[in-house]
Amino acid sequence: MGRVTQRRKVHKFVLDGSAQALEHPVRYREDFLAVEEPLEVRLGHMSFSVTMRTPGDDFDLVAGFLVSEGVIWDAAQLISLRFCAGEDENGVQTFNVVEAQLRPDVVLPETGRNVYTSSSCGICGTDSIEAVRKSSHFSPAGDPLSIPVEVLASLPDRLREAQAVFDKTGGVHAAGLFRIHDDGTGSAAELLCLREDVGRHNAVDKVVGWALREGMLPLHGTVLQVSGRASFELVQKAALAGIPVLAAVSAPSSLAVELAQETGLTLVGFSRGTSLNVYAGSDRVGVPANI
Amino acid sequence: MGRVTQRRKVHKFVLDGSAQALEHPVRYREDFLAVEEPLEVRLGHMSFSVTMRTPGDDFDLVAGFLVSEGVIWDAAQLISLRFCAGEDENGVQTFNVVEAQLRPDVVLPETGRNVYTSSSCGICGTDSIEAVRKSSHFSPAGDPLSIPVEVLASLPDRLREAQAVFDKTGGVHAAGLFRIHDDGTGSAAELLCLREDVGRHNAVDKVVGWALREGMLPLHGTVLQVSGRASFELVQKAALAGIPVLAAVSAPSSLAVELAQETGLTLVGFSRGTSLNVYAGSDRVGVPANI
Repeated sequence: MGRVTQRRKVHKFVLDGSAQALEHPVRYREDFLAVEEPLEVRLGHMSFSVTMRTPGDDFDLVAGFLVSEGVIWDAAQLISLRFCAGEDENGVQTFNVVEAQLRPDVVLPETGRNVYTSSSCGICGTDSIEAVRKSSHFSPAGDPLSIPVEVLASLPDRLREAQAVFDKTGGVHAAGLFRIHDDGTGSAAELLCLREDVGRHNAVDKVVGWALREGMLPLHGTVLQVSGRASFELVQKAALAGIPVLAAVSAPSSLAVELAQETGLTLVGFSRGTSLNVYAGSDRVGVPANI
Repeated sequence: MGRVTQRRKVHKFVLDGSAQALEHPVRYREDFLAVEEPLEVRLGHMSFSVTMRTPGDDFDLVAGFLVSEGVIWDAAQLISLRFCAGEDENGVQTFNVVEAQLRPDVVLPETGRNVYTSSSCGICGTDSIEAVRKSSHFSPAGDPLSIPVEVLASLPDRLREAQAVFDKTGGVHAAGLFRIHDDGTGSAAELLCLREDVGRHNAVDKVVGWALREGMLPLHGTVLQVSGRASFELVQKAALAGIPVLAAVSAPSSLAVELAQETGLTLVGFSRGTSLNVYAGSDRVGVPANI
């Protein structure tokens, strides 16, 4: 975990309440920063994408990214992952390039994202924007999971308690995968996997990649709790992995709600311990019988 | 601004403090969501990229994106911007495809981001990861701006007061460009431009694109205040526009600090009204003489 945070000297300025005068104008102190470095993903010898991420769990990140791009959905499709040779100016291995070998029958997308393609303006936008939506091998629709609202509301605290990096840096997002089961006294949530990253999307890819490599896809009966907001891409990543419930601490976007409704995913926002909003699929959220 | 927010019916669950029983188990209410839709950027008839964004200020977004990609730095390089024909399933114009015409001497990058390229594994990672860093026409280095710490500390509140969308949705990021000048009684900050988006990067691109189209680049003597965290990409966008000070409400990443040091940009984090941290270029932050 040495590369996940980094110590830095900072100038800390402290103002008094009036924001006019300074009590202790400047302090020098050490601060922990979340590390951010580029990761290049290669398929065979072809460069597929470069993403900025927090180092650590890189094989999970690459595996999950390939699931999120709709390229693979089964551990058997992923033959191997390895770090390529790659050195910084001092000749030190950077561990910033990962090469994935896929089974020969895996169909690769013709082009990566954000790419120059030649297409006539007659079909202006249709093809490229349609390509934003990935066809999915799995679906959250029909997953019979029911989760009591008090269990759902407890997950942000559970996530925060388990977070290793956040308390030090304040700069990373977390994604936690919980399995909901009956512990004899009622429903309980078991934390299966927690991943952190400076990028919200990477934290989710790391969780999904871990599950793929464990042979656990589709992730029926689970809840994915994330620390930030719920964007279109996060709903898509959850749906592609077959996760029935995505819960976010902050707001969802309009397109996130639309995609959740389309795919049959339960989307929860503003989950703050004592209240939460359900934007889609509220039938999976159970209210205690004694009320 | 009709497409910036959207009303939705949500199920709001409210729990009492014990998180066990429900006071008013479920309320139906209306909530405002930040709108998120794909925007395709075309250069001539070629698709350059697709980004998820909040509609509005789309021409600014495209112009700023081209600055951030290192493609243009002067309004004269951008001949025209227009919405392409593009319809949804009901035949309604989507306004989700923008075509930019650039001056013929503008050099386009050979490939977009995250693209399949064929490159041998012998130079594993070097080329692609190097390409993450853009060469810059402008530089924050040498900008003589000095900003009193109490003015700097006041900018997050100024930003929030000016934000139109946030209060409704809780789901958008904001970027505000301030010019620092002497108002006769001392330094003051004038808000030049505020932009909001579900994507932190888009909000900055919209501000930079506005400034390009106003003929204001490089943005000497300004501070860019952002609502979220400071990533590598935000520092890069600010530096490419010649902005000398980037201030964030939350944490910077390690690579953001490194790039700020390299480019001579002042990087401020955890700017919370009564305190702030300076991670690079602290010589631009002034402490009142009476302390």
